[in-house]
Amino acid sequence: MSAAPPRHDAESPLVLREDRAGVTTLTLNRPKARNALSVGLMAALQTELEAIHDDPLVRVVILTGAGSAFCAGHDLKEMRATPTRAAYDALFAQCAKLMLTITRIRQPVIAKVHGIATAAGCQLVATCDLAYCSDLARFATPGVNIGLFCSTPMVALTRAVGRKAAMEMLLLGDLIDAGDAESIGLVNRVTPVDQLDEVVAGVADKIASKSPLTLAIGKEAFYRQIDLDVEAAYAHTAQVMAQNMMARDAAEGIDAFIGKREPVWCGQ
Amino acid sequence: MSAAPPRHDAESPLVLREDRAGVTTLTLNRPKARNALSVGLMAALQTELEAIHDDPLVRVVILTGAGSAFCAGHDLKEMRATPTRAAYDALFAQCAKLMLTITRIRQPVIAKVHGIATAAGCQLVATCDLAYCSDLARFATPGVNIGLFCSTPMVALTRAVGRKAAMEMLLLGDLIDAGDAESIGLVNRVTPVDQLDEVVAGVADKIASKSPLTLAIGKEAFYRQIDLDVEAAYAHTAQVMAQNMMARDAAEGIDAFIGKREPVWCGQ
Amino acid sequence: MSAAPPRHDAESPLVLREDRAGVTTLTLNRPKARNALSVGLMAALQTELEAIHDDPLVRVVILTGAGSAFCAGHDLKEMRATPTRAAYDALFAQCAKLMLTITRIRQPVIAKVHGIATAAGCQLVATCDLAYCSDLARFATPGVNIGLFCSTPMVALTRAVGRKAAMEMLLLGDLIDAGDAESIGLVNRVTPVDQLDEVVAGVADKIASKSPLTLAIGKEAFYRQIDLDVEAAYAHTAQVMAQNMMARDAAEGIDAFIGKREPVWCGQ
Repeated sequence: MSAAPPRHDAESPLVLREDRAGVTTLTLNRPKARNALSVGLMAALQTELEAIHDDPLVRVVILTGAGSAFCAGHDLKEMRATPTRAAYDALFAQCAKLMLTITRIRQPVIAKVHGIATAAGCQLVATCDLAYCSDLARFATPGVNIGLFCSTPMVALTRAVGRKAAMEMLLLGDLIDAGDAESIGLVNRVTPVDQLDEVVAGVADKIASKSPLTLAIGKEAFYRQIDLDVEAAYAHTAQVMAQNMMARDAAEGIDAFIGKREPVWCGQ
Repeated sequence: MSAAPPRHDAESPLVLREDRAGVTTLTLNRPKARNALSVGLMAALQTELEAIHDDPLVRVVILTGAGSAFCAGHDLKEMRATPTRAAYDALFAQCAKLMLTITRIRQPVIAKVHGIATAAGCQLVATCDLAYCSDLARFATPGVNIGLFCSTPMVALTRAVGRKAAMEMLLLGDLIDAGDAESIGLVNRVTPVDQLDEVVAGVADKIASKSPLTLAIGKEAFYRQIDLDVEAAYAHTAQVMAQNMMARDAAEGIDAFIGKREPVWCGQ
Repeated sequence: MSAAPPRHDAESPLVLREDRAGVTTLTLNRPKARNALSVGLMAALQTELEAIHDDPLVRVVILTGAGSAFCAGHDLKEMRATPTRAAYDALFAQCAKLMLTITRIRQPVIAKVHGIATAAGCQLVATCDLAYCSDLARFATPGVNIGLFCSTPMVALTRAVGRKAAMEMLLLGDLIDAGDAESIGLVNRVTPVDQLDEVVAGVADKIASKSPLTLAIGKEAFYRQIDLDVEAAYAHTAQVMAQNMMARDAAEGIDAFIGKREPVWCGQ
């Protein structure tokens, strides 16, 4: 980056991608619109996530936002410009697919939240596998304030936090601070704003050091088993464990552990 | 209310209703019996809730109790007076219907808990959309102490708090204090006893200022999606959002937000 | 116990059982292997649990470990010694059955955790009805570090704690301390190490004083209703409550409560 202020015109990509040693950072890049999820931005993010899923060099993803906000939700002006049921059906189907994709790509996805995360932006935080935020971050599902209840964000929110906490956010529409977000379980940890990059880099680097095959097996099983009753969940994961044991990375990892040496992953 | 102490004889209604500017307060009114849920009291509450559901003037409901207790659960003497399976089947079906009705009426329901809430009284707190309590409130599912496990209260309790916390309350039957109730997620917030009315009024007034249509859409979707797997939950709520966008209150709310003015809800 | 150090050779039972006044303590007894869950140890524990289920003298179970660890998970050396899919299928099926058995026996099971509980050892803690730990206890699902994701432990973990906390344990594989285990809901309470025995004995004695019939009814209903949607959960538990009311222990308990005397349980 040059010392000059960054330009964010039509030529700037809506999502920036940076790759470094197995860690890929995706940056929502509509800072003037507080990274509102326009149709174009969601499409760009969908494309990046699908490419990452098939990219063996990517071991973990960091999702963050350019400028002062993490993400302010949908693009309301764009939504009101095409006020048809067909357009809205397409929009919310696209958004739901995007959220499900975050949970379905092979690599863990970490939300790095430095500023506000509201509505579908809060949904992104709730959806990511892990979330870390600065003490300046704020969270809300404020749709109720504009006559549009945050019904799709609540799918992710109610699966991340308890019901009473979720209902309060949804019915009141108020911003909550970083400490409250941590105590209800919406984020893993709050850090001072000047340590957020370092904390998230540490988490990402640690995850990037694991066997990517093992991470992919585990992430898929996590979301598969969580909606099953407990007996079905065990039936499924017992198979997953047995299959995982047959992989070369498990043999290598266990033998390295027994032999007190570092494992060398082959991804198979 | 006169300055004279209130009378609670046979002529007193079992549930008191007070309406004020869109906020309806329902008060369980058997203070000498610590507001135990007799068949009569449950029937009166059911009737009030169903009337409120159809009342466009009510935007939010506060549920509280007369006297020192919030609610001490079922009326044990009444239960033992008709010790037949048919009577018990009818009683617990009535109670389950009552609890489900709280989650199914259009308006959000707030528990205002100033004293003890035990057994089905604790179930009421767990069932309400939101709950605020004073620092003097106490909570328990003590059925195990009298040979009658709190099996129906646990339906609401286990959906509000984590499993370990729920099991401890259910197996030990001990009272927990207000701070613990907040930390496990059974209530949203604890307040000093002399601020409880003000805190709950503030929450209620804020909710009453929202579009009632939007609140109704959101509350229904909340409980509908929460028991679905995530894909079905998104399929449902994406439809809900698209339909919500077609409502006049959403257009008004979004246009007001973009135009930086206050919205005027029409409830459609 | 004699003053001499305990022997743990081939003749020592893999699980020690001690009975005292309705409280049965099961001790995982492979201290040199940090109580790793070998096929033999799991079989011994399965046998004990099934015997306890049918033993009317046992009212509550404490599960703990000999030596410095609670339980370090599966026996990796044993697993690598028979590296066949059939052996792994059998192993994980055995383990899943064991975990489900803990939730299905009539008596509540309390984990008493004085040291590390990792992988399937952490799964045991998450699975037990209640869990208390010392301030020296540590917890992890570290399979990701050895190429074998903790997919079956996560079934229990994700049902005990929130998703973000579970994901962090699973993806990073790090030990968490006792305080964090309490704050995420993995254990009920942390105690100073020299008070753990006393705290757990107090909890166990209190549970042992309840009607065993009532405990059995409640525990079964707990796990049955928790995987149902709320309407089905109420339909089931309303029946359970009505049936519970017809039991002699409920009549006795309620009459004792009304008469302000101690109940005398008959277990029927």
